Amino acid sequence: MVEGVALAVDVGGTRIRAALVDTQGRVMHRQSLATPAQEGADAVVAAIATAARAVMAAGGRPEGLKLGLCAPGPLDARRGLALATPTIRGFTNFPLRDKVSEALGLPVTIENDGPCAALGEWMCGAGRGAADFVYVTISTGIGGGIVSEGRLLRGRLGLAGHIGHIPIRPEGGATCFCGQPGCWEAEASGSALTKKAVAAGFSGLADAFAAAEAGETGAMAFAASAAADIALGLAAVIHVLNPERIVIGGGVANALPLLGPMIRHNVDARILPPFRGVDILPAALGDDSGLAGAAQLVLRPACALAAGEGQA
Amino acid sequence: MVEGVALAVDVGGTRIRAALVDTQGRVMHRQSLATPAQEGADAVVAAIATAARAVMAAGGRPEGLKLGLCAPGPLDARRGLALATPTIRGFTNFPLRDKVSEALGLPVTIENDGPCAALGEWMCGAGRGAADFVYVTISTGIGGGIVSEGRLLRGRLGLAGHIGHIPIRPEGGATCFCGQPGCWEAEASGSALTKKAVAAGFSGLADAFAAAEAGETGAMAFAASAAADIALGLAAVIHVLNPERIVIGGGVANALPLLGPMIRHNVDARILPPFRGVDILPAALGDDSGLAGAAQLVLRPACALAAGEGQA
Repeated sequence: MVEGVALAVDVGGTRIRAALVDTQGRVMHRQSLATPAQEGADAVVAAIATAARAVMAAGGRPEGLKLGLCAPGPLDARRGLALATPTIRGFTNFPLRDKVSEALGLPVTIENDGPCAALGEWMCGAGRGAADFVYVTISTGIGGGIVSEGRLLRGRLGLAGHIGHIPIRPEGGATCFCGQPGCWEAEASGSALTKKAVAAGFSGLADAFAAAEAGETGAMAFAASAAADIALGLAAVIHVLNPERIVIGGGVANALPLLGPMIRHNVDARILPPFRGVDILPAALGDDSGLAGAAQLVLRPACALAAGEGQA
Repeated sequence: MVEGVALAVDVGGTRIRAALVDTQGRVMHRQSLATPAQEGADAVVAAIATAARAVMAAGGRPEGLKLGLCAPGPLDARRGLALATPTIRGFTNFPLRDKVSEALGLPVTIENDGPCAALGEWMCGAGRGAADFVYVTISTGIGGGIVSEGRLLRGRLGLAGHIGHIPIRPEGGATCFCGQPGCWEAEASGSALTKKAVAAGFSGLADAFAAAEAGETGAMAFAASAAADIALGLAAVIHVLNPERIVIGGGVANALPLLGPMIRHNVDARILPPFRGVDILPAALGDDSGLAGAAQLVLRPACALAAGEGQA
């Protein structure tokens, strides 16, 4: 149990999930509680500690245990700071890594949720074996993480992969939470598509996609338009990075049996021919991509080379 | 002379330029001739060999001399192939590296012109000292190259950095040479901006920028619009890669004293606050970024780790 197991915590805007996770991404002694997102950063740290202690109470605290934590960005993973997380009050220049480390007496490494989920899928899921790989999560927003030539790409502050803010429709596009018009996530995230589905007369996104699968003409047009908007951002990512594989996670990934062929068609039409042939696959780990990646941060030295480690 | 000098060749759509270049990017015994772009791939190889021989006739052929060559992409640098260069007839799945190596009896390494110029600016120019750096050339098209955490980013086939085909205006944008509407380069390259300047009543791009510098209202509006379109693509690149520095080369770089502040303003308005503070600088090596980078490909082993080397 001691070897090859980490305490992994995935902090989301609504839930904090914690577990022991091994190098294969196997999740054990899972715990979860609501994120007190409006109660301030200290309350969130306390909730993280509660979840982590519950996991250790159930699964033990082996000698040498480390904690890998992913949270909504932007985080400065090297310095261990939450810079300006819009969904959690008080996560502004907040020393998340050191506060969690102090609370639990464990060494902690943090990472932005997009790159962390990318790491999980790359090491333990649908990205396995790919050297040039992009993970895209399409849920409330659009985020992601990039692996290039076998390395997690981080950039100056570890913020690489904020692909949801690629402008795809800067004139006339929907306004993003960031305030700008036409960001990819303002046009093609799960919440953006839900709004469009409701405006088109469906009760929600699942309803629209179900009607499209049943062959309803208006719903098929809606699905085709959603696929086209998803493809626009993918085309940008592909031209910048030349990946061999793209893995899509988040709620919208459930609609890939319907959307996948249309996404692939639009991507291939939009990219230069030598870039074609990118595999576009659904995530293999579902909601656990982030947990799996958080564990790899501390289990595999290569994953955390650039991210500093806080020690209580 | 033997130590630290390479034969560098920069193949463009209109000129082939060759020189001896050292690790500092110093260019010696420069030769140049027209690219026989319409006469087929073998004619281009013969012209490359002619230029290279003229350099060696002037500067000598030291023992161990290697040739670094950059050419318009997309090239598969690892396999040494020109895949589908639109500006040179016959550069379609053409074994450029091995043909040049055979013609000259020298080991040859090839690289896409964008990444190669990035390498030149990174090792010898305005990118020096940056670990996370993007080179953007804005001339006939828009291309680029990416350095991430101290490594040239190549992607699956070495095609990373084709940033000109990021869709920024997919509805109603100008049609790109690739056939798609609203690619960044179809909206903001030197040739795209020239068309817009002429449509706005100027005799050309230089004329429009000169009038803007002189304070002419219509010209200032044109320059502001050009800066805004340049900024849209940069915002995409910054969110994907989180660079610390962007270096702009190509003809439009000459207008950076005018455009730079407007580009920076638009970029900062469009990106998430933690991404701000990216340095945006003009290229330091002018037309020689590609030559300097081509030399580094063979002079610095780390630069060519992933690119195969053809040996005659």
